[in-house]
Amino acid sequence: MKKTDDFQNLINQKIGELNFDKSPRELYDPMKYALTMGGKRIRPLFTLLACDMFGKDIQKAIPAALAVEVFHNFTLIHDDIMDVAPLRRGKETVYKKWNPNIGILSGDAMLAKAFEILVDSDAAQLKPLVHLLSKVAIEVCEGQQLDMNYEHSELVTIPEYLEMIRLKTAVLAGSALLAGAIVADASAADQHEIYKFGEDLGIAFQLKDDILDVFGDESKFGKKKGGDIVAKKKTYLYLKAHELAEGKILNTLTYYFVNSTFDDEAKINEVSAIYKQLHVKEVAEEQMVFYYQRALAHLANIHLPETNKAALLEVAESLMSREF
Amino acid sequence: MKKTDDFQNLINQKIGELNFDKSPRELYDPMKYALTMGGKRIRPLFTLLACDMFGKDIQKAIPAALAVEVFHNFTLIHDDIMDVAPLRRGKETVYKKWNPNIGILSGDAMLAKAFEILVDSDAAQLKPLVHLLSKVAIEVCEGQQLDMNYEHSELVTIPEYLEMIRLKTAVLAGSALLAGAIVADASAADQHEIYKFGEDLGIAFQLKDDILDVFGDESKFGKKKGGDIVAKKKTYLYLKAHELAEGKILNTLTYYFVNSTFDDEAKINEVSAIYKQLHVKEVAEEQMVFYYQRALAHLANIHLPETNKAALLEVAESLMSREF
Repeated sequence: MKKTDDFQNLINQKIGELNFDKSPRELYDPMKYALTMGGKRIRPLFTLLACDMFGKDIQKAIPAALAVEVFHNFTLIHDDIMDVAPLRRGKETVYKKWNPNIGILSGDAMLAKAFEILVDSDAAQLKPLVHLLSKVAIEVCEGQQLDMNYEHSELVTIPEYLEMIRLKTAVLAGSALLAGAIVADASAADQHEIYKFGEDLGIAFQLKDDILDVFGDESKFGKKKGGDIVAKKKTYLYLKAHELAEGKILNTLTYYFVNSTFDDEAKINEVSAIYKQLHVKEVAEEQMVFYYQRALAHLANIHLPETNKAALLEVAESLMSREF
Repeated sequence: MKKTDDFQNLINQKIGELNFDKSPRELYDPMKYALTMGGKRIRPLFTLLACDMFGKDIQKAIPAALAVEVFHNFTLIHDDIMDVAPLRRGKETVYKKWNPNIGILSGDAMLAKAFEILVDSDAAQLKPLVHLLSKVAIEVCEGQQLDMNYEHSELVTIPEYLEMIRLKTAVLAGSALLAGAIVADASAADQHEIYKFGEDLGIAFQLKDDILDVFGDESKFGKKKGGDIVAKKKTYLYLKAHELAEGKILNTLTYYFVNSTFDDEAKINEVSAIYKQLHVKEVAEEQMVFYYQRALAHLANIHLPETNKAALLEVAESLMSREF
């Protein structure tokens, strides 16, 4: 994946060139920390790959790519405050390393920074790009709000869950790709298809995440499996199990997602056993494959030679075949 | 002030037309609440007055004016969380009425919404307008961070304080006016002057606020005087008093701004007495007049007939002559 590696290196180089050595340090240090604590740069990579696929010089897409990545990191800072998450990518989260107020404010500044970076795009594409970033920002907020609502709601349906992950995760993947297509002046039809490709891929990706959290290869995973179970997250696996379970099994499942227990290990083991018994992994995989296939169909609809699509397809495949 | 009233009515009408009747309600209700809980709409009024002053149809400036007001209300929602302020304009603040997470998220969505609204501006002015809004958003964050830093810092100098209020308050006044001038295609020189007019006016306005908090007409003020003293806010009055005080007076002043006391009334009385004894009100008024005069000089530099400037000047005068 030479091209992908080159693009990712370019993104990291450009992020490194953003100037956060400013005053007040309490505002800029967290921004720099959040942006350089790792991350696979998938979203800005999507922007560059889409731009390249449609035959435009990727230099033109760099402001949009950086804006997407800065925006994404803003959402992580604020989500970690709301979710009271002490760690991200194995490191202390911003609000934990500093404090919640600094998390709020440096996140705000990063959201504004994303728009400031985006302004360096060519004037001809600025209107659709700013519209896209503001629209997706609002949708991601809607998704996060639904996620918080569902934490406290007893009954969440699978369609509601899928809509939540669409807003919280998938629209940003679609928008990252669409931004690249806008920069490249792709046709309206192709812009639609690349957006839907990203959206469906994003949903498939999140379902994969849900599955891997319980059934991933722990030795490669880097963290303990079952984090979602411990956190009582209502993932696709849980919701499907809740739908299929009856009698004693339903009681056990509900017990673990209502009450708190001090024995995480036992909880993970028992809930995983229920998931296995009800074959929810297989149902989730079916659902995931459905979205992935639909994503591929959208990619196929794009009016370009297959060779143009190869790099993006390869990245999509690697995302869907990861084992941890 | 017929024109000003008309413009303010138009702003309120347009804000009323923004659609917040959307799902999830937990995200949109707070946005609507924050935007309709009152407020004088000074900043969007500035945008329309500047546009009108430079001879352009104010309809062209409505997206920028609304964006400024929506942005301003975003800052209030987040500031109230950070400042743990239960009340604003006599009503419960968003985070208090709902919860801090909803405050964070609805604020985020409002910041994004400001940019979404701004996109309706004419394409020709979009680049400078988006650049302006993102730049001022970052500056306001810098100002809020400095404000938080100064809360815990023992020694804040008066130049540091003035720089903090410039960033936290004044740059938005300048930017609101500049946005109107950009829409009206004013010359670069005139754009500079109107921005500096707003910036200096904003600093003068905040100094007036500091003075009125202690020396305002309580019967007209609507709230108890001395709120800044109770909150141990390091206002201009406090910093100047701290600079001038010696011996026992300095000890008393420092005591009240370091320790907590349960007798707010006594604290307000004692600190006010010190302020009077040291004549810091007069010093603050001098400083305020200095900035206001400098603002007027910038307005005078604008290449327009005096009649064009009359409405804006009248608003500035009314802001500076308020007694509560």
